[in-house]
Amino acid sequence: MSGNSLGKLFCVTNFGESHGPAIGCVVDGCPPGMKLDHLDIQSELDRRKPGTSRHVTQRQEKDEVEILSGVYNGVTTGTPIALLIRNIDARSKDYSNIAEAFRPGHADYSYWHKYGVRDPRGGGRSSARLTAPTVAAGAIAKKWLFETYNISISAYMSQLGKISIPFISYDYIDKNPFFSPNMEIVPELENYMDLLRKNGDSIGARIEVVANNVPVGLGEPIYDRLDADIAHIMMGLNAVKAVSIGSGFDCIGQLGSEHGDEITPGGFKSNNSGGILGGISTGQPINVSLAIKPTSSIRVERNSVNKNNEAVVVQTFGRHDPCVGIRAVPIVESMMAIILIDHALRYRGQCGIK
Amino acid sequence: MSGNSLGKLFCVTNFGESHGPAIGCVVDGCPPGMKLDHLDIQSELDRRKPGTSRHVTQRQEKDEVEILSGVYNGVTTGTPIALLIRNIDARSKDYSNIAEAFRPGHADYSYWHKYGVRDPRGGGRSSARLTAPTVAAGAIAKKWLFETYNISISAYMSQLGKISIPFISYDYIDKNPFFSPNMEIVPELENYMDLLRKNGDSIGARIEVVANNVPVGLGEPIYDRLDADIAHIMMGLNAVKAVSIGSGFDCIGQLGSEHGDEITPGGFKSNNSGGILGGISTGQPINVSLAIKPTSSIRVERNSVNKNNEAVVVQTFGRHDPCVGIRAVPIVESMMAIILIDHALRYRGQCGIK
Amino acid sequence: MSGNSLGKLFCVTNFGESHGPAIGCVVDGCPPGMKLDHLDIQSELDRRKPGTSRHVTQRQEKDEVEILSGVYNGVTTGTPIALLIRNIDARSKDYSNIAEAFRPGHADYSYWHKYGVRDPRGGGRSSARLTAPTVAAGAIAKKWLFETYNISISAYMSQLGKISIPFISYDYIDKNPFFSPNMEIVPELENYMDLLRKNGDSIGARIEVVANNVPVGLGEPIYDRLDADIAHIMMGLNAVKAVSIGSGFDCIGQLGSEHGDEITPGGFKSNNSGGILGGISTGQPINVSLAIKPTSSIRVERNSVNKNNEAVVVQTFGRHDPCVGIRAVPIVESMMAIILIDHALRYRGQCGIK
Amino acid sequence: MSGNSLGKLFCVTNFGESHGPAIGCVVDGCPPGMKLDHLDIQSELDRRKPGTSRHVTQRQEKDEVEILSGVYNGVTTGTPIALLIRNIDARSKDYSNIAEAFRPGHADYSYWHKYGVRDPRGGGRSSARLTAPTVAAGAIAKKWLFETYNISISAYMSQLGKISIPFISYDYIDKNPFFSPNMEIVPELENYMDLLRKNGDSIGARIEVVANNVPVGLGEPIYDRLDADIAHIMMGLNAVKAVSIGSGFDCIGQLGSEHGDEITPGGFKSNNSGGILGGISTGQPINVSLAIKPTSSIRVERNSVNKNNEAVVVQTFGRHDPCVGIRAVPIVESMMAIILIDHALRYRGQCGIK
Repeated sequence: MSGNSLGKLFCVTNFGESHGPAIGCVVDGCPPGMKLDHLDIQSELDRRKPGTSRHVTQRQEKDEVEILSGVYNGVTTGTPIALLIRNIDARSKDYSNIAEAFRPGHADYSYWHKYGVRDPRGGGRSSARLTAPTVAAGAIAKKWLFETYNISISAYMSQLGKISIPFISYDYIDKNPFFSPNMEIVPELENYMDLLRKNGDSIGARIEVVANNVPVGLGEPIYDRLDADIAHIMMGLNAVKAVSIGSGFDCIGQLGSEHGDEITPGGFKSNNSGGILGGISTGQPINVSLAIKPTSSIRVERNSVNKNNEAVVVQTFGRHDPCVGIRAVPIVESMMAIILIDHALRYRGQCGIK
Repeated sequence: MSGNSLGKLFCVTNFGESHGPAIGCVVDGCPPGMKLDHLDIQSELDRRKPGTSRHVTQRQEKDEVEILSGVYNGVTTGTPIALLIRNIDARSKDYSNIAEAFRPGHADYSYWHKYGVRDPRGGGRSSARLTAPTVAAGAIAKKWLFETYNISISAYMSQLGKISIPFISYDYIDKNPFFSPNMEIVPELENYMDLLRKNGDSIGARIEVVANNVPVGLGEPIYDRLDADIAHIMMGLNAVKAVSIGSGFDCIGQLGSEHGDEITPGGFKSNNSGGILGGISTGQPINVSLAIKPTSSIRVERNSVNKNNEAVVVQTFGRHDPCVGIRAVPIVESMMAIILIDHALRYRGQCGIK
Repeated sequence: MSGNSLGKLFCVTNFGESHGPAIGCVVDGCPPGMKLDHLDIQSELDRRKPGTSRHVTQRQEKDEVEILSGVYNGVTTGTPIALLIRNIDARSKDYSNIAEAFRPGHADYSYWHKYGVRDPRGGGRSSARLTAPTVAAGAIAKKWLFETYNISISAYMSQLGKISIPFISYDYIDKNPFFSPNMEIVPELENYMDLLRKNGDSIGARIEVVANNVPVGLGEPIYDRLDADIAHIMMGLNAVKAVSIGSGFDCIGQLGSEHGDEITPGGFKSNNSGGILGGISTGQPINVSLAIKPTSSIRVERNSVNKNNEAVVVQTFGRHDPCVGIRAVPIVESMMAIILIDHALRYRGQCGIK
Repeated sequence: MSGNSLGKLFCVTNFGESHGPAIGCVVDGCPPGMKLDHLDIQSELDRRKPGTSRHVTQRQEKDEVEILSGVYNGVTTGTPIALLIRNIDARSKDYSNIAEAFRPGHADYSYWHKYGVRDPRGGGRSSARLTAPTVAAGAIAKKWLFETYNISISAYMSQLGKISIPFISYDYIDKNPFFSPNMEIVPELENYMDLLRKNGDSIGARIEVVANNVPVGLGEPIYDRLDADIAHIMMGLNAVKAVSIGSGFDCIGQLGSEHGDEITPGGFKSNNSGGILGGISTGQPINVSLAIKPTSSIRVERNSVNKNNEAVVVQTFGRHDPCVGIRAVPIVESMMAIILIDHALRYRGQCGIK
């Protein structure tokens, strides 16, 4: 129940540091009797893994997952599923120069002051590398949600820096290095990223995630609401600074007569609610939007201090994503899946299966 | 640990329905030895209570709180503090016409489908009235945070519908019915609200909340991050559709060299992070912004269905806030306090007191 | 989630002090759609309430329960059920003499050292009076378990001091002041208690509790085992010093070939396991036995110290149970019910309903 | 928070099956800044590991632990400590004959009915082998408790079957294969065990565990009491059927004037309470006693049924402990340590450090 676990009935406990021996997680509460192969998990990890294009970090990690428990003869047994990913390409010397200084925008400063000790290699525990176990756990959740309720979850990039990406089709998302739902804009994105990389700088992004076929009734008011739990996991993703659901910040300027989604015998007429009313799913698509800040690891010189509070200038070399938002796409899909399965199981527990 | 409790060491369990006998909460984990009087709590409830101006609901509830336990001779004992607020002005007949129909934008639809039964009076469990116990619990948290760390928390309205409210001073916030930090704009806000009320419609709002003097080190990565827990409680507030921290959605268009807050021996040079890095507080002010949707209870006619999925037209009479965002101000301050005290206690537990 | 809550899906949060304004609890997670009347709860409270015979405390508390929430039109709604019991007959002056001294066997010493402050009136938070809310919550659990699975739970006294009480029939349990399953021994018990009361002393007791018709499959290894959770709640009852399941301490001297219950196509041939194997229910009766220590509040003079660690002599007057084990019977039934419903709901959540 | 995690601030999540690829745990919440080497953990595992004498299972497992995270440069960082133990000597063919039948006394029956699928190899998840990760986690807890509070925890065997083992000295416990505090009785124990092994049968045992130097104030009434949490973890240990604290079942026959421990300015005069009053530690030694049932895996023929509920005769060959109580000694020490550290951290959180 401490800070590295998530979920009540489908509970994920995450461990590891960027350059330690291994990262991984324990998934406790997966229903028994589901076919599960390591390839079900590997395929999601491969979408997130580094080194897949020149626009993401060049660290070479295969991110091969090993299932240590909870699966017997290819079927889940209801016992904890432990997943292990060894760290292979850990060049710790890259970080020796910043072990004593706090990189602006990074967690170095806050970890140091909280714990009095930290693993500085690659950001240690605060590295975005620790999203890999979340993706692995989410792969299990996605499979169960699809097989049980036909739920599908898709994320995509809708904005890169100042460049808006008009939505065309989900079909394109896995066909370009940006998870863009629009192929025509890809050259513009590539040019922008090439320039950025040359400058040693980084940029923010906006990510959308949509869950379809979610049954009505998931979420427990008044604190463990479905929207609250989605906001929790999404804001907890490295670099996220804002989370919105449905009409989001646009609701501020809306009249009640515009915002409230009317209902007909055939269903809702609009979806300003983003599929959640009173913290409980309505059966409409759940729409979430995220703001992801620019990567803090840049080659541009920045002012900072060291552990002795002396002024220093920091440049971060090493292998970094110039837009950490790109690789966020498979991660946020997994996060959505984890929240949905947890609430689906809780719903079955309290209300039975209808 | 079920859906109506919040917090791990400072744990709030909320109960009640809008028109049931009473609402309230149990606060478990408050440190012993703090002076606490019911007036400490009442003063915060009075800021939230209905009927204080013509711009909020005219329901007359004194919201008088009774401390049932956990305080002896005016001092907290470390045992659970139960707080009780009786419902007085519950005119249930106002709601008889909508007991069978689902009001657009309301939780009627989702509650009905989830539980198969619901208390329709005044929204029952999904009413914003249930924020009163949260405010009461937050009053205890605020007092402890101020006495222990000198933490102060202030919220205010920064936008009403399309009207932006330029920040002038915290001094004005409690001097006008809108919790506006700007007195000059108040007449414009009043005119707008008067018109809106005449039309029987409602409008959204944007609320800012700031916590000062938060010590460095609060928050537990990688899931119980401070920003994640703030997003959780804030998105869980009725009508909230978006939560942002620090530069929020603006971070999308920022370069890394702009966004990452530089540090000098005298402190940070900017606060794009909103006081949180890697999920842990930095000691800077924590800045959060919320989008609050327009009230769903409006007199304007809307299309909907009843329990038999037959088309109906719904108008909601009764006594409602035309901008539920107004009364959100004291609530979000309380919510911030609850998150901060919980993490402060957890920090003491794991890391000791420095 | 703090120390005064119990259960994951059926979660009970207890509050109150013996002589404060009120005691009570919030039951979060009760399934919706069950008929529930305050009399369902009152009938269990009446079995536990003080003053029912000369062998228990003469404090006069009607223990009238008020349902504050979670029930609408006589049916549970799935939202938290708050239960309130006002303290009426609180003669705090009885305790003024021991506010500064620590009564041997009581929690005075440990509460004082832990919290630095305590409510001494009637034992404050550590009073056995706080079992009343547990009984109230258990009444709800018992009703649901009986209606859903036909589960019945019965407890009785099997030993009073050195006097063994041979089991005759469940029919007698509610027909004598000792919850004895044997009427013939009642005069002996009464004589013993009368003598004891005259001497101002107290005595221990042994209580058995049996749950029938529990479905196979409840319990979650390896930590939230059904036997572990039963031991937790039972050892947490005031004055309990030992808990055993099935053959209990007798298993030490058993051979494996004696202890392991053989199975036939018609069922198990014995029940040394007490209905639980590997932490999961087997469908056999669950048998639990408890040792309850003698009441610590006695008129006999005892040596102790006060807050300044000065030697004092303590006698406890006031109105006390000379055998606190007597009134434990309805309490332990309720406790068993709370554990069983929580695991039944968790089982439905993870495994579905078969 | 699901069934395989334990503790609130020091949280252990256990995974693995007896004959799967690996077993292990994640320890979340260990305070930062403590020196920790894998040998600190290995030394405790070596006390528990199989094959150390002819009186325990002959399975050859080195139980070598690998620290995967949470330790940097030999010091804990406050982040999760993942511990991995590979299964080496897994002869699954030994179990092929019982994959379809339910061994009397084993969890086969209840797992099968709960999950509908199970890993039968070596008992799968229900194997006592899964106590190894608990021992590993407990080794960390023990180290912290000793360094912080000078707490020491010792367990020993006090009875083997019908043979009582008079206590002589803690010094002997680690000098004989039975963890007996009495060397003179060892030959008698050896003879008994040799005979038992020859007969293919098994026997129960009684284990005592004592914690010294526990500070006053640990435990959170009224549900997360220290005695309740100790009972929970101890009853959750495979094969335990009874747990008692202090005078245990003997308290039934005691008068209040005998049982309640008197206090003098120099301390308590006796320890019937077992170091816990009102669920909170008193500073006296905490004494717990456990009944451990005979091993269910025996060569003696037993009646049972298979998955089709057809009568079968079961004999369990393979390598088993004839008295599982022997190897329980290091396990229960670890369990006590886990409970104490969790409550020590919670105490610091709520009450600060005095």
